[in-house]
Amino acid sequence: MNLNSANDAFVAKLRSHISEAAIRTVEPRYLEEPRGKWQGQAGVVVAPANTEEVAAAIRAAGDARVGVIPYGGGTGLVGAQIMPEGPAPMILSLERMNTIRGVYPEENVIVAEAGVILQEIHEAAGAAGRLFPLSIAAKGSARIGGNLSTNAGGVNVLRYGNARDLCLGIDAVLPDGSIMHGLTRLRKDNTGYDLRNLLIGAEGTLGVITAAALKLAPRPQETGTALLVVNGPAAALDLLSLARDQVGEAVSSFELIDGQGFDFLADTLPDIRRPFDPAPPWMVLVELGLSGGAGAQAALERLFGAGLETGLLSDGVLAHSGAQRDALWEIREQIPEANRRVGSVSSHDVSLPLSEIDGFIAAARAALAQLGDFRINCFGHLGDGNLHYNVFPARGRTRADYPGMGPRVQERVHEMVVARGGSFSAEHGVGRLKTGDLERWGDPARLAAMRAIKAALDPLGIMNPGAVLTAGG
Amino acid sequence: MNLNSANDAFVAKLRSHISEAAIRTVEPRYLEEPRGKWQGQAGVVVAPANTEEVAAAIRAAGDARVGVIPYGGGTGLVGAQIMPEGPAPMILSLERMNTIRGVYPEENVIVAEAGVILQEIHEAAGAAGRLFPLSIAAKGSARIGGNLSTNAGGVNVLRYGNARDLCLGIDAVLPDGSIMHGLTRLRKDNTGYDLRNLLIGAEGTLGVITAAALKLAPRPQETGTALLVVNGPAAALDLLSLARDQVGEAVSSFELIDGQGFDFLADTLPDIRRPFDPAPPWMVLVELGLSGGAGAQAALERLFGAGLETGLLSDGVLAHSGAQRDALWEIREQIPEANRRVGSVSSHDVSLPLSEIDGFIAAARAALAQLGDFRINCFGHLGDGNLHYNVFPARGRTRADYPGMGPRVQERVHEMVVARGGSFSAEHGVGRLKTGDLERWGDPARLAAMRAIKAALDPLGIMNPGAVLTAGG
Repeated sequence: MNLNSANDAFVAKLRSHISEAAIRTVEPRYLEEPRGKWQGQAGVVVAPANTEEVAAAIRAAGDARVGVIPYGGGTGLVGAQIMPEGPAPMILSLERMNTIRGVYPEENVIVAEAGVILQEIHEAAGAAGRLFPLSIAAKGSARIGGNLSTNAGGVNVLRYGNARDLCLGIDAVLPDGSIMHGLTRLRKDNTGYDLRNLLIGAEGTLGVITAAALKLAPRPQETGTALLVVNGPAAALDLLSLARDQVGEAVSSFELIDGQGFDFLADTLPDIRRPFDPAPPWMVLVELGLSGGAGAQAALERLFGAGLETGLLSDGVLAHSGAQRDALWEIREQIPEANRRVGSVSSHDVSLPLSEIDGFIAAARAALAQLGDFRINCFGHLGDGNLHYNVFPARGRTRADYPGMGPRVQERVHEMVVARGGSFSAEHGVGRLKTGDLERWGDPARLAAMRAIKAALDPLGIMNPGAVLTAGG
Repeated sequence: MNLNSANDAFVAKLRSHISEAAIRTVEPRYLEEPRGKWQGQAGVVVAPANTEEVAAAIRAAGDARVGVIPYGGGTGLVGAQIMPEGPAPMILSLERMNTIRGVYPEENVIVAEAGVILQEIHEAAGAAGRLFPLSIAAKGSARIGGNLSTNAGGVNVLRYGNARDLCLGIDAVLPDGSIMHGLTRLRKDNTGYDLRNLLIGAEGTLGVITAAALKLAPRPQETGTALLVVNGPAAALDLLSLARDQVGEAVSSFELIDGQGFDFLADTLPDIRRPFDPAPPWMVLVELGLSGGAGAQAALERLFGAGLETGLLSDGVLAHSGAQRDALWEIREQIPEANRRVGSVSSHDVSLPLSEIDGFIAAARAALAQLGDFRINCFGHLGDGNLHYNVFPARGRTRADYPGMGPRVQERVHEMVVARGGSFSAEHGVGRLKTGDLERWGDPARLAAMRAIKAALDPLGIMNPGAVLTAGG
């Protein structure tokens, strides 16, 4: 199944199927991605105004056997939105499909087109007195279609689930250009195969999501936020159990913070206020969101007291204002930027069964010490078992001092994760970065079924070729 | 793709692939279903001891082109577990795979084989101080594999989601006999297509789930239950909003009860105590489950007071003991049995966007009055938008007095549901009962994709032939 380039002849044909306004200049922003690992290429960028135009563009690409790269906010971290080689594709940007079609506060539902920016969905939900809980660092530029296509995670998964859990229905264009209408606002609908969840997380390889009906949640009436110094990852998990015993589902976030992350902030972003100095080895950022009259501050103080008493924690700061809350979140949210400035040897987005986390962290540190002298910043969504396990040069050295080491570190980390029943991609997806990992670690029967589904729905192989599944596989 | 009967020659071959203990007598219980709509048939029943034997049996069936009917507890209401015609199939019962493989309270996870009865999972979770929230009337005989294959719903979906939302990972045997290993205990795993959710709800047509890792929840420390007399379905939904404003996710159940259901109980099961006489037109059964110290009784009383004040409700009883709570639930749970004794003209399991419910109930009553003289019992999981909309003969008449009327009533109801953006099968599935509805009301692109996936994964068409998708389609 050889594809063709989206050349001038193709663009000329495209013009007969979609409006002129949908044909865009191939600006550099479409060809870059946040980590600078790849340089993309494209023969044309199209930005359809509606689902029918998406369908027309995909049908044209199918007729011409041109690859299609669906493009949301461009914030993905595994290269699903970038075609670095092969015949130049058509980039299909959802940026013009940016209408919020309806907010139904009494149903706790919002219906948005795929190109709406995540932050705008937050704002529309908030204006209706509701919460759209999906929240990631890139919320100001990520678009909801991309969030769904990659099944985005973030800081509220613990309580509200990931993008998949927040989606009730989708409209999508399938690889043959047919439109699948499924923008239902239903909580229950058992009428056949779950194609919604098949497209969610398929990273654009099985079709393009063009609109979604999303779940909203009641806004917690009181929020309590604290940064607590814990006696290690195991103590942190025990503290999470304690918190859930005390307040049930009200634990909205439970983020592990590594003392190494504090040190990186001190080195690269010194203006960010760090409440503890020197940095304790391990902290957690806890947020509770409670309903009316339940007393979030009191609940946090009770948790703090119980944590002190049981020896799970030794210190902490509680936010007493919105500004203090923002300051605590600023620490968490700037750690990825600090990491970027330090420059990792290898970064990992892994998940583990909760009871394997403590053992993994100890064993991985020991195993990597045998490979070289590293600093490790292990942080993230502890309550979900999701660690951003990032490995950095020793102080005073740079990644250039570790030639060829990145892949070795990565292999070792992924090997240890998989051996403990974990995943080598918890929330970022496979994209083009981890196709080799999927081949290596994926269950063979599952991979064969994935390939059979890909071939059945996209026999020409035009949708996001090379992402998730390798072409040759 | 003509299939063959599971005849003596096939059974003889089967014996060379699986242990003798797995070959069962074709007892009548395998050939009956709860509503007595169909009489099943089978050439052989196999009950494998483990996943490898399931795989061997399916490979043998594939070699001989014999149909396979996966069989859990036999409690399904749409005939997915029954083959009434065509070549006699192999019934594949999971009854011997009934081991709970592990309980991980610190992870809030339980791992169970597909044949474990739902009630046993409740008990194992309870023994570990946890809750497995999936709860349906048939919990004493339904098996978890069937619950997952049909994406079962029930009375706690409002808070905890349906079977799909409670499943972290599955092992399954695919139609080619390959074993897909995916029994992960992970909360996040973005490594390729979501085959778990594809198999969940596929009603055994794409493979057989053999084991599952399931989410547990903290047990609410206080439960409050009340039966409230509401001023109609719209008032009931407003009361639900009020309850959520007051206690957030703690609303575990919110069941609509129709005065007609009370009258049916009085007629057919008079020993069940009904707190209001005569029956009010509409009631809701509300249950709150709260964490430590939050005061469930007080919360219910506050809700009751606010409901009275705003005119949403006019009366109610609060349970003050476990026995009183059970008595309220007994009313709800015996309504289906009362319905069965009265004998419906047509029963429906529909869902609607919440804001369409009130209008639908009024419009459907008016539309059916034009078809004939009926009694309507409209009850169920209101918070999920899921109504069991059941239509009965007028008092003193029986369904025999309504010849040919069942399909007409059903068509009218489903037509009105679909026109309002609803579903003709909210939680029971498609099975063999609703394949015609799926053809008629299903989105064409979605149906085409379903057929393509079925053909890709089960090219011989051996898995549950005739369920969900019609063979000719």
